[in-house]
Amino acid sequence: MSTRSFGARIRRNIDPKLLRGEGSFVDDIPLPSPLHAAFVRSPFARARIRSVDAAAARAHPGVAAVYTCDEIGALDIELPQLIPHPSMTDPRTQRPLARGDVFHVGQPVAMVVAVDRYTAEDAAALVDVDYDPLPVEVDLERAVMDGAPLVHATHPNNVAAHFRQVSGDPARAMAQAEHVTRIRVQVDRSTAAPMECRAVAAMFDAVTGELTVWDGTQAPISVRGALASILGLDEDKVRVVAPDVGGGFGQKVYQFYPDELLVPMAARALGRPVKYIEDRRENFIGSSQERTQIHEIELHARRTGEVIALRDLFLHDTGAFIPYGIAIPQVASTSIAGAYRIPNIEVEFRCVYTPTVPVTPYRGCGRPQATFAIERALDQLAEELGLDRFEVRRRNLVADHEFPLLRSGLLFADGLPVSLDSGQYHRALALLAERLGAAGFAEEQELARGQGRYLGLGLAFYVEGTGLGPYEGGHVRVHPITGKVYVNTGLTSQGQGHDTVFAQIVADQLGVAVEDVIVVEGDTKAFDWGVATFASRAAVVSGNAIHQSAALVRAKAIAAAANMLEVDAEAIDLREGAAWVRGTNRHVSLAAVATATNPLRYAFNEAAKAATQFAPASRHDGPALRPGEHPGLEATDYYSPPCATWAYGVHGGLFEVDPVTCAVKVLRYVCVHDCGTMINPTIVEGQVLGGIAQGFGGALYERIEFDEDGNPINANFVDFLIPYATEVPPVEILHLETPSPLNPLGVKGVGEAGCIPVGAVVASGIEDALRPLGGAPFRHVPITPSMIHAAVAGT
Amino acid sequence: MSTRSFGARIRRNIDPKLLRGEGSFVDDIPLPSPLHAAFVRSPFARARIRSVDAAAARAHPGVAAVYTCDEIGALDIELPQLIPHPSMTDPRTQRPLARGDVFHVGQPVAMVVAVDRYTAEDAAALVDVDYDPLPVEVDLERAVMDGAPLVHATHPNNVAAHFRQVSGDPARAMAQAEHVTRIRVQVDRSTAAPMECRAVAAMFDAVTGELTVWDGTQAPISVRGALASILGLDEDKVRVVAPDVGGGFGQKVYQFYPDELLVPMAARALGRPVKYIEDRRENFIGSSQERTQIHEIELHARRTGEVIALRDLFLHDTGAFIPYGIAIPQVASTSIAGAYRIPNIEVEFRCVYTPTVPVTPYRGCGRPQATFAIERALDQLAEELGLDRFEVRRRNLVADHEFPLLRSGLLFADGLPVSLDSGQYHRALALLAERLGAAGFAEEQELARGQGRYLGLGLAFYVEGTGLGPYEGGHVRVHPITGKVYVNTGLTSQGQGHDTVFAQIVADQLGVAVEDVIVVEGDTKAFDWGVATFASRAAVVSGNAIHQSAALVRAKAIAAAANMLEVDAEAIDLREGAAWVRGTNRHVSLAAVATATNPLRYAFNEAAKAATQFAPASRHDGPALRPGEHPGLEATDYYSPPCATWAYGVHGGLFEVDPVTCAVKVLRYVCVHDCGTMINPTIVEGQVLGGIAQGFGGALYERIEFDEDGNPINANFVDFLIPYATEVPPVEILHLETPSPLNPLGVKGVGEAGCIPVGAVVASGIEDALRPLGGAPFRHVPITPSMIHAAVAGT
Repeated sequence: MSTRSFGARIRRNIDPKLLRGEGSFVDDIPLPSPLHAAFVRSPFARARIRSVDAAAARAHPGVAAVYTCDEIGALDIELPQLIPHPSMTDPRTQRPLARGDVFHVGQPVAMVVAVDRYTAEDAAALVDVDYDPLPVEVDLERAVMDGAPLVHATHPNNVAAHFRQVSGDPARAMAQAEHVTRIRVQVDRSTAAPMECRAVAAMFDAVTGELTVWDGTQAPISVRGALASILGLDEDKVRVVAPDVGGGFGQKVYQFYPDELLVPMAARALGRPVKYIEDRRENFIGSSQERTQIHEIELHARRTGEVIALRDLFLHDTGAFIPYGIAIPQVASTSIAGAYRIPNIEVEFRCVYTPTVPVTPYRGCGRPQATFAIERALDQLAEELGLDRFEVRRRNLVADHEFPLLRSGLLFADGLPVSLDSGQYHRALALLAERLGAAGFAEEQELARGQGRYLGLGLAFYVEGTGLGPYEGGHVRVHPITGKVYVNTGLTSQGQGHDTVFAQIVADQLGVAVEDVIVVEGDTKAFDWGVATFASRAAVVSGNAIHQSAALVRAKAIAAAANMLEVDAEAIDLREGAAWVRGTNRHVSLAAVATATNPLRYAFNEAAKAATQFAPASRHDGPALRPGEHPGLEATDYYSPPCATWAYGVHGGLFEVDPVTCAVKVLRYVCVHDCGTMINPTIVEGQVLGGIAQGFGGALYERIEFDEDGNPINANFVDFLIPYATEVPPVEILHLETPSPLNPLGVKGVGEAGCIPVGAVVASGIEDALRPLGGAPFRHVPITPSMIHAAVAGT
Repeated sequence: MSTRSFGARIRRNIDPKLLRGEGSFVDDIPLPSPLHAAFVRSPFARARIRSVDAAAARAHPGVAAVYTCDEIGALDIELPQLIPHPSMTDPRTQRPLARGDVFHVGQPVAMVVAVDRYTAEDAAALVDVDYDPLPVEVDLERAVMDGAPLVHATHPNNVAAHFRQVSGDPARAMAQAEHVTRIRVQVDRSTAAPMECRAVAAMFDAVTGELTVWDGTQAPISVRGALASILGLDEDKVRVVAPDVGGGFGQKVYQFYPDELLVPMAARALGRPVKYIEDRRENFIGSSQERTQIHEIELHARRTGEVIALRDLFLHDTGAFIPYGIAIPQVASTSIAGAYRIPNIEVEFRCVYTPTVPVTPYRGCGRPQATFAIERALDQLAEELGLDRFEVRRRNLVADHEFPLLRSGLLFADGLPVSLDSGQYHRALALLAERLGAAGFAEEQELARGQGRYLGLGLAFYVEGTGLGPYEGGHVRVHPITGKVYVNTGLTSQGQGHDTVFAQIVADQLGVAVEDVIVVEGDTKAFDWGVATFASRAAVVSGNAIHQSAALVRAKAIAAAANMLEVDAEAIDLREGAAWVRGTNRHVSLAAVATATNPLRYAFNEAAKAATQFAPASRHDGPALRPGEHPGLEATDYYSPPCATWAYGVHGGLFEVDPVTCAVKVLRYVCVHDCGTMINPTIVEGQVLGGIAQGFGGALYERIEFDEDGNPINANFVDFLIPYATEVPPVEILHLETPSPLNPLGVKGVGEAGCIPVGAVVASGIEDALRPLGGAPFRHVPITPSMIHAAVAGT
């Protein structure tokens, strides 16, 4: 190929459309005379429902239907527990509409469908629900104490799951330790806050029996499966389309929100399209959240700083339900040893029900908490042993020759043992130190202190198991006439730029321009099989599936072109949208090759065959297609990773903290990042930067707050602070590219990376800045001005 | 399998829906605010257009657009010639809207799109077209004479194509003949007259760029290809759906009617759905027709009646255009020797342009004409040699041991030499003679004559090359949860019962009930590749493709079930919707097998795997899917026939003709029919009966009439007579089943069979009845009372 698209800084195909406001989100789908849904939601964190009286709402002009749990037939169930695990007993999941009890403020109790949203909300206010409030405990540590009010009577001490994993022989190693560092760290609850809230619209065709659903989901194929299964439809009769989606970050892969099932049900029952567009408050009280964990971590070390054992005991807040099982704490517990060799590990957690919005993975999924724990502990170990923070890491980082490093006994979220597959951890740390000027920083810091300025350097390393299975597929098809290449896969984009990176993969294989490759995702009629977008897996799993499919199409194109041009396959070169006889000007367009691989007109008439310019691609005696031969220039293949592939990185920052105003200023922020081979550095940087922005949210601003009764008290963008452009510092990004040995493209996931270490970096930096002032260390994020004030005041 | 569906008289799945009026035809598709199209059509058979003034129409209230050839951009072309052949020079095809000239009454000149059909027709009447009429000749024999007015100035003597084929050494054989029979026969023009006229509706989504078209077509995939190509869209952006369609008979596979292209174009241009529902008059003057051929046939025989050479020279009326090339006369010319061994054949034809509705294949496609020619000639030969009509056939019919009988030199419509593959011709003839009581008929006839009643026996043998390639595909998928089996193929049904016969094929393979197999056809989003429904090919080509796909799914199901039940594959039996360990009660439902073949939840978590009731179907170490393994219980395969497979049959009837009223009464009608292995005898009989009904139309009633100026004079159901139930006699059907050696199922096509010999049988019978009265023989169908009167009066 003349120029390689893979690895190039190609601009995103989708941006012009989105920037011109021509995106088509769920609310933009034109529907004939749609009805609109609104929900009646619980105002109590925990209550028994004495009665629901919907008569007034039903009588309200313009109301088509009011559904309570009594009117939803097969949907009146506890929704499926998605990831079973024996550490859970009788896991509790949500019912589409509450029956008997409510478990968090915002839980849907009834759905009103009316001619417009205004009417639907008015009518929702007329639904009279008589609640009997019950006592609650929202504090994680108090919730597990004896006597705490229970979220579910079935679960003593509110413990939803209890799990312990061990790698190596931690007891023996701990006995040999010369130094032990113990700290308690806490990460608070945040939310994904996607720019577009969730949305679902549905239309049912009574004649064909086909249900079409537009859903701003990360998992259209799963939604189709659930709808078909619960509504008693065959999957072929259900089409789920995820159109343009304005950010997901995990929140949109909940599987299954009540509205995702109830809106299609209503569309079918009422014979009219129905839509529901979540508003921002509903996103805060009804869509899933994540983060709260409290870790008690111990590092058992030699005096040299070499950590020989790690013990971690933590609590994980799972909210009112546990639909995702132990996915988040399992990721946290298997990431707890970070990038360090630490051969002996014991990690144990309890998942705790609290009467709050359910918790499911949010970008990072347990890794920010694990990274915060191990990195804060390493800083503490360094301090206790009088070591430099870089040095203590150098002494523990996995060396290049140690890959793959297996942590036998620690099963990752894919059910397979943790195995760090490749990396250049030492080089990454050295690059960071160099770029950040770490060597000279102490002097700079000293100088500043003399001027009454408090500067600090923070750093944190992290690893990220990415590209989880089980599989994704890819379909690649070259169109006749136009020569355009269409690519389909089962997962879908919420703005990540799949349409560009997948196009790059295919463009190289087929020798076409990236803009001639059209990626169609998120439509169950376009691709039937797949899982979802989560776990930084799209590039790894769909990317490799598409790569393999494109390679099959390439082989087919070369064989067909060789036949048409009457040369050997080895003589064919694919470039510039055509197949060329190498070293000559003889060529045939890929469009013509695609046309010829459909043996359509040729077979009608022998004379017609002779009349065509080229021999048909599959010319041979006998049938137009040989047994097993398929028409068309297309192929479908699947990629199923053997296990997770581990990306990593190290971030560092220089901070200035004002002990009077308690303001934190980020002077510099450097990210050294390695996600294996990069398909498109620009998109990698976009992902990393976006992640870092969200990381700053979690480090300094974002905390979902509940009062003692479990009422959310900052469920809006005035009180819940997300970083704007003004709060996100410029970031210097340095790339390393250590290919993954686990997949043909050598890629690793990058979707979540950016956010993982930021809390640890910021805490490390603030602590470093304020060290001369003494006070408490920073082991709790987000770090608010009040917390800084308290720390400084404590001196 | 306990009971076999294949071969059983299963009721048609689709009938309850259709009988309850719940079918969904194009006009039933609910569209948001559709616009309606009407056409301005030429009132002249041949004219030059001086000017078109659409101003008044455009100004008419409610009109959205008026299109002439100047406003249709890329569509202002001569549409593709579908089947090229060197016997044609510069073949003429239709333009979507006339430019410069019109070539038949009814040709579209402009399209009006308005808020409703009423308004559109009013506005169409306001389009002022100034025509300069030109002279015409509609008589086929006069049209080829020097000096006849030309339809296309490019074609002297109106000859569109001229082709001659030779098998054996006819010149040498003719020199050896002891007797020559020469007759001229004529078959007149008819029309398919489907119960539902043609219809097309289209909707364009400007945001996604997707065009959806509902088209009552026999060839949705071809329509998609044409639309994509001509409108400059990629095929993935065009979805063509053929919903329920009320009969096609070839007329709906024209490819491409102007409205099929113009309506989608307008929907795209106007941003609103547009529909066009053809009315009956438009069907007569705008949709294709077929039949007129005039044959001069010679049989060169020995005195024994053995025909050693055949020469046939014929004219074929192709109407104003020749979109299908020489398909019809080529089928006629290669079927001309019928079921007879005749080793030396010379056949030559000219396709003749006439200023009439274009001619494309109509059920039978040239075979009724060829059968009429050879069978009438054999009757004449018998008469001339004083032989019994059965006996002269016996002496020439291909014997069982002679199969396959190759007619080298005669290329059939698939471009391959004619090769009669299998049959029991002699047995069929004997069965007919026996059932009809042929042995005793002469006595009966004599007796009747004594009573002044004129009875006649008619018979005709025919062969039919069926199941043409190039290919069709099948996709078979077992659904998780429900266990229902979905089957997709690229061609589509117009009422033939595909949904039942394809389901029978699959039901046996997978051991499920026929009603649990759902066949979805005619939707380019459901299956991407295929050709169309024509040439009695669906059961042969799609049937075998689906059979092969089902066999792949069967193998996959057995392997997966064996894994789940922990036995060898050989021990598994599929029946009653489940996989059973043979000889035991241990089983697992096919739904569960389908669920297990999607390695979805298993891979999330090792513990979850252990928790499932059965081992996952694809359990093994490493990735969830092995390289090349695909998820789900599904498969796609294609079938591509090596050449046509030849069905055959012989019909006979007893007739009574009243020489005074000229009424023809059918006393008995017997059909001996062999379409290879039968999938469903009830459906075979439905096809045969329907064909015979249409055959009686062509034999006694249906003739499209033009006046000298080329004006259709019976373009309605009052003047153009189609047989009602009262005109179709009871038919006795006897089946033979000689499997086709060419495909796994052993099937041959049956869609057209019934209509092929009826004209010859009726003519033979009337001639036999009236023989004592002398007069002209019957060599021209349809046979009207006037023709009988003339024949009788001639004595």
